[in-house]
Amino acid sequence: MRPKSPQKLLRRSQTSLYLVTDPVNIRYLSGVGVSAGAMLVTRRGFFLFVDARYAERAKREAFAGIKVFPLDDLRRHLRRGAHCGFESEKVSVERRARWSSRFPGVTFVRRPGVVEHFRRRKDPAELRYLRRASRITRELLRLVPRALRPGITEEQLARQLALWALERGAEGLAFDPIVAFGTHTASPHHAPTRRKLRRGHLVQIDVGAKVNGYCADMSAVFFTAPPTLLQRNVHHVLRAVQRASMCFARAGVTNRALDAEARAMLRDEGWEQYFTHALGHGVGLEIHEGVTLSQKQPEEKLLSGEVITIEPGVYFPRRFGMRVEEMVYVR
Amino acid sequence: MRPKSPQKLLRRSQTSLYLVTDPVNIRYLSGVGVSAGAMLVTRRGFFLFVDARYAERAKREAFAGIKVFPLDDLRRHLRRGAHCGFESEKVSVERRARWSSRFPGVTFVRRPGVVEHFRRRKDPAELRYLRRASRITRELLRLVPRALRPGITEEQLARQLALWALERGAEGLAFDPIVAFGTHTASPHHAPTRRKLRRGHLVQIDVGAKVNGYCADMSAVFFTAPPTLLQRNVHHVLRAVQRASMCFARAGVTNRALDAEARAMLRDEGWEQYFTHALGHGVGLEIHEGVTLSQKQPEEKLLSGEVITIEPGVYFPRRFGMRVEEMVYVR
Repeated sequence: MRPKSPQKLLRRSQTSLYLVTDPVNIRYLSGVGVSAGAMLVTRRGFFLFVDARYAERAKREAFAGIKVFPLDDLRRHLRRGAHCGFESEKVSVERRARWSSRFPGVTFVRRPGVVEHFRRRKDPAELRYLRRASRITRELLRLVPRALRPGITEEQLARQLALWALERGAEGLAFDPIVAFGTHTASPHHAPTRRKLRRGHLVQIDVGAKVNGYCADMSAVFFTAPPTLLQRNVHHVLRAVQRASMCFARAGVTNRALDAEARAMLRDEGWEQYFTHALGHGVGLEIHEGVTLSQKQPEEKLLSGEVITIEPGVYFPRRFGMRVEEMVYVR
Repeated sequence: MRPKSPQKLLRRSQTSLYLVTDPVNIRYLSGVGVSAGAMLVTRRGFFLFVDARYAERAKREAFAGIKVFPLDDLRRHLRRGAHCGFESEKVSVERRARWSSRFPGVTFVRRPGVVEHFRRRKDPAELRYLRRASRITRELLRLVPRALRPGITEEQLARQLALWALERGAEGLAFDPIVAFGTHTASPHHAPTRRKLRRGHLVQIDVGAKVNGYCADMSAVFFTAPPTLLQRNVHHVLRAVQRASMCFARAGVTNRALDAEARAMLRDEGWEQYFTHALGHGVGLEIHEGVTLSQKQPEEKLLSGEVITIEPGVYFPRRFGMRVEEMVYVR
């Protein structure tokens, strides 16, 4: 939920100034899409600094109350003696070093994840975009079977998904889609190749449409012949794990507990070791943002208003793999 | 040009180890597209470290001679006392801080731009992809006039460009295209809106197709009615500036000299102050990489084998702007 006042953001940063340089965070706070620039949050408000290329656009597109300045003015606003929080997980070592000479006398304080914290809870406008993106993505998955003719390549199907997304009003795909045929499904992050579809191939798709910058992310499995007993089994179990996780995914539950539950269900089947990635992650302006549902991560509670993926998967090396993935609105 | 031996890269880094964590650089050196992971360059070779999600794919796709290990093994390879160069312009302050506890006793040395230096000169395979991407982009621009029917919106035309690119075999667009009608052209980095095309509108397009990760980048202006005298004039001058810059863009010429020449030509017309961005930039696996043709940048000589854009533009605030852009292979 966008901070309603600069004070709210500064309380989180525990500094009297906060410097935002990540383009996604600038877009989130200001409404202006830029490839470069900076936003300074002070007690008096939100100040956006852009170079000449973005000046006209920034003035037109910035949210009400945001003041726009030329990028060179930033130095005047960062006075000697200032304590300024910054996005230490986004700013490179080299850039931080340049700041020391560019902004003499300013103390920069590492404050990772400040804007990202607000981004976790989605507001109604954001939910609208996410819903539209996920609706289009669901349509894409519904269209897949009609493209599954023998001879089509993974690359061709990936391109077809992008075409369908555009035709349905998305601004494109949110990420390079995963399209895997046969043994390629054993690789959870397979990149489409020229492999041709043959009858009997298992087909794994992971795709998402993008609407106004907001990303959807879903996965589904398709059978081009009656599945083997093992395949059928894996698919049923994954859907059961998914359903259970979706019920369990409420505000207050931790990322680690959710992942642990899913892993326990797969352990009962003897497949835990083949579930080689996290159970899910937050989505929004970025395809991975906010929380990661994994036991390897620091413990965090799910927040009401978050949108996350639930994507249990099982991958048998060199044989096959499957993943089912849905998006969930946490309440 | 991809370094033929690890020694070559380490000579540039002036360290006995170099740690690559930027996904684009990992892809460039290893041939494997990953969203996370690391590559360690030692005197003995190139070592790729990936997590379980990418293990199968990395083994299949990595260039000959590259050894693939689980990500957790990286620690064993970075021994106490090691001096290790790293991509300080890519690694965040927070990540660098985590390394200190994760790799105790290792001294990390800031070495920005090492892999990027090799990426500047393109090899024949890279040129093939860039040529294919620019051929498709040229086709897109040729198709634009047939879409310029009154009533089409900037957003619709942007989506149409993406559709055409996919239909012609690109993996998509290299960046969000710029489509500007009428006064919107005054903003060099305009994002498409719902503005509808009217007869008389000037149309500015900036678009590029992507082929196997390689980005094209071109701009063109379209008239929907006979241009005004000023518009005609600006267009002629920009094309003259472009032609002159393209002749001048040879190996050994500096980025600043090239920009200065173009600016001088525009000064003669009294338009220098309206040329608000750099004359061009390198392109490749990223839409902006390598050199920037600007007087605000440190001086650098163009290298034989580089591919750059030449894109003079003039923007009259609140009235109109124009930019013409081509890609050039430097020899």
